[in-house]
Amino acid sequence: MSDDPIRAAVQQLRRLPGIGEKTATRLVYWLLRSKEGTPSEIAAAIAGLQDSVRECEVCCDLTASNPCALCAREGRDETTICVVEDPQDVLAFERSGEFRGRYHVLHGAISPLDGISPDALRIRPLLERLRDGTVGEVILATNPNVEGDATALYLGRLLGNLDVKISRLAHGISVGTEIEYADAVSLARALQNRREVS
Amino acid sequence: MSDDPIRAAVQQLRRLPGIGEKTATRLVYWLLRSKEGTPSEIAAAIAGLQDSVRECEVCCDLTASNPCALCAREGRDETTICVVEDPQDVLAFERSGEFRGRYHVLHGAISPLDGISPDALRIRPLLERLRDGTVGEVILATNPNVEGDATALYLGRLLGNLDVKISRLAHGISVGTEIEYADAVSLARALQNRREVS
Repeated sequence: MSDDPIRAAVQQLRRLPGIGEKTATRLVYWLLRSKEGTPSEIAAAIAGLQDSVRECEVCCDLTASNPCALCAREGRDETTICVVEDPQDVLAFERSGEFRGRYHVLHGAISPLDGISPDALRIRPLLERLRDGTVGEVILATNPNVEGDATALYLGRLLGNLDVKISRLAHGISVGTEIEYADAVSLARALQNRREVS
Repeated sequence: MSDDPIRAAVQQLRRLPGIGEKTATRLVYWLLRSKEGTPSEIAAAIAGLQDSVRECEVCCDLTASNPCALCAREGRDETTICVVEDPQDVLAFERSGEFRGRYHVLHGAISPLDGISPDALRIRPLLERLRDGTVGEVILATNPNVEGDATALYLGRLLGNLDVKISRLAHGISVGTEIEYADAVSLARALQNRREVS
């Protein structure tokens, strides 16, 4: 750590993902020129994060309240749980406005190469939630990559002998993507999953 | 300001230049998952910035010590001052390793449209430094744009009746740029400033 506070701040900001030496330097000089109090406001919001945020004891999403706002909200469909890898995925589903059920956050995906086994994921609390028979469908919304597919396969087998419907997200070409520019894998999936039109 | 610390942190990080909603969200979740103490270390370096950093009373660069490390350093050429717009420009010159003299930081450039008049720049301390006759050359290293050129013109006239050599940086094609891809203005300047080879 440098004695020079400018160098020290650049080195600290460089720890953030996607922020290199140049960007960190630009941010530090912006902070130095900003209105008095701005850096401390930003710093306070960062410093308080880990202390004020915990995992929701129901869905395992990161939250300041327990249960989280989404679990506490009335009127959402109690019979469907959408299982996602990360808290950001919950935000993405909420932005889509399409899903009205509950979520469950695994905090990762199975990845033997990174040493992430099923034990490291929040699978036990998910099983707890399925115990009383309220839930009729579990949507496995893990990412469409090796780790996400492995996690969905694992969960699918684990939940297979419960009286619950298990589904996965549909893959296909993105809305707005012209076929000419669609990637080959998505186009293949779109063909495999094609739907009859009356 | 939101009650939710995650939302609050996203909103605070969005204030930084070049950081939008998506990047801010990614950074906040990275901070939440980071090793305990990491967010507070980063926050402390940001919060302390404005309190610990002042303008050097000699060169006006931003610094924690007064005079700054570069002004205090022995063995640099006292007879040449390189006048730059911003503290970052000093770092750029130091990286080039070519300049062994002193710096002077104006903290901006003349820009009537942005309401920045010569009075807002650190021109008076520059004149102070030229008073005792030690300095033989002033390099006007303002940026090659309208504001930088206007500032250099203004300073050139202001210092014109002092017994000091005034120079500007050479413009031309960047080292490593193929002529085919050089921009037209740089190529024109490279032609105008061409040098005879023995």
